[in-house]
Amino acid sequence: MRRFLKLPTNPIEVNSDKRISQLIDEMMFTGFQGRKVAEVVQVWSRMLKKRNIVIWFGLAGAMVPAGMRRLISYLIERRMIDVIVSTGANLYHDLFEALGGKHYVGTHLIDDVKLRRERIDRIYDVFADENRFYGTDLWIEKVFARMLRDDYPYSSREVLYLLGKLLSKHAKDKASILISAYRSGVPIFCPAFGDSSLGFSIMFANRRTRVVSIDGKKSILKKKRIIVDYLKDVDESSRITEKAKQTGVIYIGGGVPKNFIQQTAVIASYQTRHDKSHGYAIQISTDVPQWGGLSGCTFEEGQSWGKIGFRAQRVQCYADATIVLPLIVHSLSEKFRSLRREVPVFEWKGSDLKITYERMRL
Amino acid sequence: MRRFLKLPTNPIEVNSDKRISQLIDEMMFTGFQGRKVAEVVQVWSRMLKKRNIVIWFGLAGAMVPAGMRRLISYLIERRMIDVIVSTGANLYHDLFEALGGKHYVGTHLIDDVKLRRERIDRIYDVFADENRFYGTDLWIEKVFARMLRDDYPYSSREVLYLLGKLLSKHAKDKASILISAYRSGVPIFCPAFGDSSLGFSIMFANRRTRVVSIDGKKSILKKKRIIVDYLKDVDESSRITEKAKQTGVIYIGGGVPKNFIQQTAVIASYQTRHDKSHGYAIQISTDVPQWGGLSGCTFEEGQSWGKIGFRAQRVQCYADATIVLPLIVHSLSEKFRSLRREVPVFEWKGSDLKITYERMRL
Amino acid sequence: MRRFLKLPTNPIEVNSDKRISQLIDEMMFTGFQGRKVAEVVQVWSRMLKKRNIVIWFGLAGAMVPAGMRRLISYLIERRMIDVIVSTGANLYHDLFEALGGKHYVGTHLIDDVKLRRERIDRIYDVFADENRFYGTDLWIEKVFARMLRDDYPYSSREVLYLLGKLLSKHAKDKASILISAYRSGVPIFCPAFGDSSLGFSIMFANRRTRVVSIDGKKSILKKKRIIVDYLKDVDESSRITEKAKQTGVIYIGGGVPKNFIQQTAVIASYQTRHDKSHGYAIQISTDVPQWGGLSGCTFEEGQSWGKIGFRAQRVQCYADATIVLPLIVHSLSEKFRSLRREVPVFEWKGSDLKITYERMRL
Amino acid sequence: MRRFLKLPTNPIEVNSDKRISQLIDEMMFTGFQGRKVAEVVQVWSRMLKKRNIVIWFGLAGAMVPAGMRRLISYLIERRMIDVIVSTGANLYHDLFEALGGKHYVGTHLIDDVKLRRERIDRIYDVFADENRFYGTDLWIEKVFARMLRDDYPYSSREVLYLLGKLLSKHAKDKASILISAYRSGVPIFCPAFGDSSLGFSIMFANRRTRVVSIDGKKSILKKKRIIVDYLKDVDESSRITEKAKQTGVIYIGGGVPKNFIQQTAVIASYQTRHDKSHGYAIQISTDVPQWGGLSGCTFEEGQSWGKIGFRAQRVQCYADATIVLPLIVHSLSEKFRSLRREVPVFEWKGSDLKITYERMRL
Repeated sequence: MRRFLKLPTNPIEVNSDKRISQLIDEMMFTGFQGRKVAEVVQVWSRMLKKRNIVIWFGLAGAMVPAGMRRLISYLIERRMIDVIVSTGANLYHDLFEALGGKHYVGTHLIDDVKLRRERIDRIYDVFADENRFYGTDLWIEKVFARMLRDDYPYSSREVLYLLGKLLSKHAKDKASILISAYRSGVPIFCPAFGDSSLGFSIMFANRRTRVVSIDGKKSILKKKRIIVDYLKDVDESSRITEKAKQTGVIYIGGGVPKNFIQQTAVIASYQTRHDKSHGYAIQISTDVPQWGGLSGCTFEEGQSWGKIGFRAQRVQCYADATIVLPLIVHSLSEKFRSLRREVPVFEWKGSDLKITYERMRL
Repeated sequence: MRRFLKLPTNPIEVNSDKRISQLIDEMMFTGFQGRKVAEVVQVWSRMLKKRNIVIWFGLAGAMVPAGMRRLISYLIERRMIDVIVSTGANLYHDLFEALGGKHYVGTHLIDDVKLRRERIDRIYDVFADENRFYGTDLWIEKVFARMLRDDYPYSSREVLYLLGKLLSKHAKDKASILISAYRSGVPIFCPAFGDSSLGFSIMFANRRTRVVSIDGKKSILKKKRIIVDYLKDVDESSRITEKAKQTGVIYIGGGVPKNFIQQTAVIASYQTRHDKSHGYAIQISTDVPQWGGLSGCTFEEGQSWGKIGFRAQRVQCYADATIVLPLIVHSLSEKFRSLRREVPVFEWKGSDLKITYERMRL
Repeated sequence: MRRFLKLPTNPIEVNSDKRISQLIDEMMFTGFQGRKVAEVVQVWSRMLKKRNIVIWFGLAGAMVPAGMRRLISYLIERRMIDVIVSTGANLYHDLFEALGGKHYVGTHLIDDVKLRRERIDRIYDVFADENRFYGTDLWIEKVFARMLRDDYPYSSREVLYLLGKLLSKHAKDKASILISAYRSGVPIFCPAFGDSSLGFSIMFANRRTRVVSIDGKKSILKKKRIIVDYLKDVDESSRITEKAKQTGVIYIGGGVPKNFIQQTAVIASYQTRHDKSHGYAIQISTDVPQWGGLSGCTFEEGQSWGKIGFRAQRVQCYADATIVLPLIVHSLSEKFRSLRREVPVFEWKGSDLKITYERMRL
Repeated sequence: MRRFLKLPTNPIEVNSDKRISQLIDEMMFTGFQGRKVAEVVQVWSRMLKKRNIVIWFGLAGAMVPAGMRRLISYLIERRMIDVIVSTGANLYHDLFEALGGKHYVGTHLIDDVKLRRERIDRIYDVFADENRFYGTDLWIEKVFARMLRDDYPYSSREVLYLLGKLLSKHAKDKASILISAYRSGVPIFCPAFGDSSLGFSIMFANRRTRVVSIDGKKSILKKKRIIVDYLKDVDESSRITEKAKQTGVIYIGGGVPKNFIQQTAVIASYQTRHDKSHGYAIQISTDVPQWGGLSGCTFEEGQSWGKIGFRAQRVQCYADATIVLPLIVHSLSEKFRSLRREVPVFEWKGSDLKITYERMRL
């Protein structure tokens, strides 16, 4: 019996001078999802102390409209994460705010028909001005998309790199995921690239005829022929796991980002004939396993597929990330006021990749 | 449009010197359940600043085994809550720890048949020694229950008051809900009193014959005839809302405690012919409204019944309380390092009640 | 590998002549919660074929307002269940409909303040007329409660038996849980008896003075002194599991009914020094295990406590019971057009109990 | 008050001769999610009776491994749906079963490390043989992918059409989504095409060098250069909503398919300068609105964006689709034993589209 009853819980005692990281650490001796928050910080901290690890970060759910943008930007700049896989919407809303757009404190108890009449878009209890979104869409179509080459099959990573580069010049609010990632050499993949205003605004550049002048004299009608290739995303992303010495994964939500990162382990294991399962795994999730979907499934299930390693340190915390992500990031920021990591540096030649590790002080 | 777009969100910026209450305050300008945490602190703070209010506190879910005991004990002693309605299990586990028992850090990934073989009881990822529980059960039956009068219909409040009194002498760990409530004059109701080890251990005193000596000479066989009356609980609890100038409610979880506190408003309105709906309302809940049950239902639904007032300030935060309760309590403790409140003092004559308000520094 | 891959799934093929029970049976070869529905029918069917078993039925959630009353009444009359533990609300709403009251098809998308103004009470998407509820409350207080003895500690079972008896004479709609249970000898416990309009309306009889005439001449003022005893409920309910040869449990929702039935196994094992854990276990639940509460916890967790047997056949189906209960009951009704069971017959002498088994054709 | 209390609920009465559609119809007079099942059938039925409507069908969650494949195939062949947007995994598993692969009845209570050792992949309580998956992957890479043109930017629709065509010749089990869609002229989009074994197996064809003989004499080394273009998917899908006279949507789960179909309304409204919001909307969802994500958000929220029409008939049923989809499809099959619909016929010229409506008897 003793082996099961080694470590007593320690009910949290209130102290009005307690620091955030201290409170989270104390949660390790409580139970249920509270304890999981502490375990997330623990597993993440271990990753940060590990040499030669590539840390994947999956981002789903409307995290940017909900005010999580700068937290993620911070994680990028402090290199607490190394590669991002995101839904298109999060990147679009990041771009929107970088260009000066605003989201507003609203309420979920509202008559949506009234909102529609005033062209206000609702995301649960966050509001936004649809006309401002439209302005952003036009900027993507008419400013950004025009810079993209015709007939070249881009990966989403390449497109987002160029977008980050452009934004880093024009942005009003630079605490942006796209800009930070561009500056820090953190690749971003968006494996449902067409599924957002970002994707469809680029598509509009392909669809709408515009006048192009030649030599200042003649003018002709032209459409863009931009191509963004799904397969290149699969190829490039899996190369990261193939080439990495070891990998860890952090998922905010589930969805396509979780599956896409999980599958890099499967592809890399096929390709290299070695076990390339992820060695550390964290998920913040509101979805639960009982429905059989990938978003909510356990990391144990992932082990059966060889996506997550036998001995992987892993923790899933069932909670809305808008509650726990701020806690976790602040806890990490207290614990790692100065961080020395051997950070992976990605050198792409086309889709081919070389990873080197550089000791950085962050 | 302007009326809907007044207050922009403000994405949280990381600062490694931030205090807990500061981070929670910043969440007010984010979205989703993160913002709700900030709103809980806001509504609770407003209650604490209100004169002549009685604050109900409903406690469901295995909060004590999960290490929340001292937080609640703190809330009682600082009089941030005034009356408690709890499940029996939380009180039993509080008693268990007060008497020196321990819960242990376990895991939900375990073979329960193995645990059974070693007589270890599991509560998700918390373990406990069943033999120690059994010792506590015997203490209730043979020490506490023997002190109770025969043939007197107790309310659960009366029984729990006596239990707190007894414990306050014998307890090893006095940061206990029962003891703090006894000492601070905070009544506790347990409207499913029979539904826990606490209830059934008292019942055993009624069932088991024991030898009682008379005059040190003759000895006879006797059983206890303890009675705990449901109706008295309804009567006494509703008197609080009847007599209170105004009331607020805070629910950790839903279940019987939520319904029981809600119904005091209905009874009080019947009885007094005045609107006695609760004027402030907070719930931390993992249950959601879609299933139609009372645990997860919205406070808006409660308004249709007259349980929650038309103009009640109200917030429901969907999250595991083991995550957010520690945050909220620490946030309140920072905000109210010194608290002056007009605290309700309950004077019971039998079931009859007089409430006076006493200005206290807490 | 073969031992894990014995039984292929069989994707459901559409056939417009399929019967309900046939479709449910086919779900056994699908996955996720769909398959669980089929397993519920399977485990329940096995219980019905077992000799000398007592089948507990826990009822939580607003099942009666949601139109599940006659299904449960059917289960009682066909003796597919033997003892009921219910929330007070379900019994109150059953009584309400038995006396001719109606619930109405409403919507959850409604302004509750408007409803309040018209004294309409909302239960998610079901509406009811508060004045009609008030009439029912008065009937309980002035008709039913007056028949109860003073100063006698009732169990809720006794009160509900008397209520069923009274109703069986007066009811307009006799497809009632209370009436069917009375007629079929099925005991009903309500271990949070005070927590509902049923409980508080009886309490009002204790509170309100009324004029009683003596000899048709003198008149005096009198209040009732009705007592309903928590401990008697624990005592009586645990005796059922103590005396039963074996037991099975079926939970619609969780809450107090689930815990109360689980605990009878603990008490009975204490009392008899034998393993009295439940041998079959079914739950329909919208709550999940991750929050650590009893409502959503797994039956495996229950095994660690000795509440559920090592070899118990058990299934938990995560779904709103308003979807799956109609399916399951109709499936059982097709499978058991004629049912021969050895039905437990409960003979109470005070709280003491004798169970005999009678072969019945149902 | 009367306007709110028009239609009483009608508690379901058991009848062992009841048909599936009859039971579902009766649920209309119950409450909660049970009633929603009936509403889904009602709204879907109305769509089927409408002239000139295009019915979108979004498919997320592991529906095919869970045995829902033939139900969807039936919906396609009976043209109860007109365009599909699916996750890659569902299509991959459909292909896998069409080629003779099997999923197996498993359990979620299993040691996944054991499964891994035997190369068995788990999807909640469904098992599969990883080696068989690998065989399917090779078939995609070596048989199917080799047929695709190099350097041509495909839409996922085009690739899936060709896959359906190839499969319709080779499949062992033809009750397949891909085959039925091919045969019935129902386009399938997969807007996270790279995010599945389907996508990555095609990618492997691009990566692996293979020997190609020229003239039967010389042989050279060659890789495929297949391109699948995100933007083309956005373009083509939105054209459907642009050209359709009106549209309805049915979502099984949320995820990318839901968002992708919603956004076609936004794009089409931009493009055409008319309100092209969807006029009918159904969702079966296990996700709930409280987390702010698109998967669980209400259709009312969608109205604020102009994705769902002001007057749209809409219903969201919160349940595992493995329970309710079989019910709904069988209910529709009973109600529409013979269906006459004006079915949209899609004529693609490249990405350009013409929709005509053809009266069909189905």
